[in-house]
Amino acid sequence: MSFFVGVDLGGTNIVCGLLDQEFNLLAKSKQPTEAANGSDFVLERIAVMIEDLLREQNIDRSQLGAVGLGTPGFIDPVRGVCTFASNLRWNNVPVSDILGARLGVPVFIDNDVRMYIFGEAMKGPGQGYANVLGITLGTGMAAALVNEGQLYYGGGFMAGEIGHIIVGDGESTPCGCGLVGCLETVASATGLARQAREALAAGRESVLGEWFPGAEAANVTAADVSRAYDEGDALAIEIMNHTGKLLGRGLSYAVTLYSPDALIIGGGASLAGERLLGPMRDELRKSVYHGYWDRLTIHPGALIDDGGVIGSAAFAASRAALQQVESVRSEEA
Amino acid sequence: MSFFVGVDLGGTNIVCGLLDQEFNLLAKSKQPTEAANGSDFVLERIAVMIEDLLREQNIDRSQLGAVGLGTPGFIDPVRGVCTFASNLRWNNVPVSDILGARLGVPVFIDNDVRMYIFGEAMKGPGQGYANVLGITLGTGMAAALVNEGQLYYGGGFMAGEIGHIIVGDGESTPCGCGLVGCLETVASATGLARQAREALAAGRESVLGEWFPGAEAANVTAADVSRAYDEGDALAIEIMNHTGKLLGRGLSYAVTLYSPDALIIGGGASLAGERLLGPMRDELRKSVYHGYWDRLTIHPGALIDDGGVIGSAAFAASRAALQQVESVRSEEA
Repeated sequence: MSFFVGVDLGGTNIVCGLLDQEFNLLAKSKQPTEAANGSDFVLERIAVMIEDLLREQNIDRSQLGAVGLGTPGFIDPVRGVCTFASNLRWNNVPVSDILGARLGVPVFIDNDVRMYIFGEAMKGPGQGYANVLGITLGTGMAAALVNEGQLYYGGGFMAGEIGHIIVGDGESTPCGCGLVGCLETVASATGLARQAREALAAGRESVLGEWFPGAEAANVTAADVSRAYDEGDALAIEIMNHTGKLLGRGLSYAVTLYSPDALIIGGGASLAGERLLGPMRDELRKSVYHGYWDRLTIHPGALIDDGGVIGSAAFAASRAALQQVESVRSEEA
Repeated sequence: MSFFVGVDLGGTNIVCGLLDQEFNLLAKSKQPTEAANGSDFVLERIAVMIEDLLREQNIDRSQLGAVGLGTPGFIDPVRGVCTFASNLRWNNVPVSDILGARLGVPVFIDNDVRMYIFGEAMKGPGQGYANVLGITLGTGMAAALVNEGQLYYGGGFMAGEIGHIIVGDGESTPCGCGLVGCLETVASATGLARQAREALAAGRESVLGEWFPGAEAANVTAADVSRAYDEGDALAIEIMNHTGKLLGRGLSYAVTLYSPDALIIGGGASLAGERLLGPMRDELRKSVYHGYWDRLTIHPGALIDDGGVIGSAAFAASRAALQQVESVRSEEA
């Protein structure tokens, strides 16, 4: 019996989870990151958290198969290096080498979105599908593709940035990436709130204007737009319909190019649920060849809280297995 | 020393090529397909062509590593079955089984576009790049992605149908796929000719109207649009600019989602060259995050005549090598 550890490393907290080889979460621990103390401090804290988890569960260290670690930022998953993580202030930290040497097991890292989607593909609603496309709608928008049990990376590990597709339809909000009118300026928690704020500033009637009069409009969130939608507010309905439509159109490109079997929608803004996914589905169905639509299943993300931990552990297990195959291969050669 | 055979099977002709393990084309033969005689006849003809090629080059059959066969149509490359090929009138022909048993070597098949792009990735300008996206602009428009030496298929082997992305911009030509305004209704030899024909019918001034007066306008081809462009014809320039722009926009989705290192443009309509690729490049550069653009190299296809044969042989070599690894893997398990 092998066990795997998944680590969800954020700017505020570290969450470690111990999983069995079927990726059932057996135990979890959480500690503050305290990133200001530097990367050696943080990695040592993670190592101790992992040792504590093993001890508490009476698992010998020899039974630990691999450790996976996910974090926001730019990651080189092949070299196991965190190239840049702004919330940790890390530059070129060789996480796999440092933590691997400290723990004596293989350590694999990747960014948090890919880890989360990998978890949904292996243990969430994507389980059993050969090609899983997952998106997260949060502060921004991101995507990852899991093909036959492996993440698709593309050149520079940059594939899947569906949030930075230009959607047309007159959208002209400048995006952090340098382009104008990217999908994530609309289809994200930030995008939903921005649309509401701009409509209020333009004098549009809405219950949101009553809840957030004057300068308070700056505080409208995506959740507020959902609340207003449920009150039948015309502006909120218009925003959800427009956002769902552009999301569906963006996804139509991804579905045509990737041909996924399952599409998983996660992230905070996905809590808008059918308000957003209804119009998204309508537009997607109209915008792809029916052969894609017929084979596609669409699921909300299921691993809400533990997705990062489960995905990181599953990723580590998958990469460790792959490494074994590759070593057999090179012995043969 | 191993040798590989690539077969380019069309509705009119069969072309067989013998290649060494560096995919140099050593010899080639061509015979009519005579598809009306049925699949057994055609496959036996291919087997004899391959035996003749080996004999003429003094190569023992034991040195033949594998055979690859590409053909237009719906292919299941995993089972080696031609599910449907309209120009051959084939339905569910188990090509790999029949030809493999006849020749005593592994036979791998796929559709002609994927074989051609695989060839450009392995032996054409895509050589040395980890992620190669290739498109063909012909009667229609198609694409294939070669990632780390392997074709990306997606669910139902349907990935990469970039021709069936809806491009907007008011395009409203019905497409054979059932949608309206697909990229291939514009960015293809057919699309270029259609735009010219429709403009002439609408009374637009053009040298094309002098070359093809009245009902003869039905005979305008993409090559004629290129010729008119070279005479400075305003309509032809407008058509090339518009087509290049929409092509660039469609490719911007593919580049953002796949993150290729190299983009290869092949197919008959790519002979329009810079007339089309100039505006395509401009739009693509403006429509993707600079990180994608900076790492991307763009190449016209190089394996004009022999791309199908070279690609099929390279594909067979790659699949045969993969099968060996998998058999090692299953012996281990």
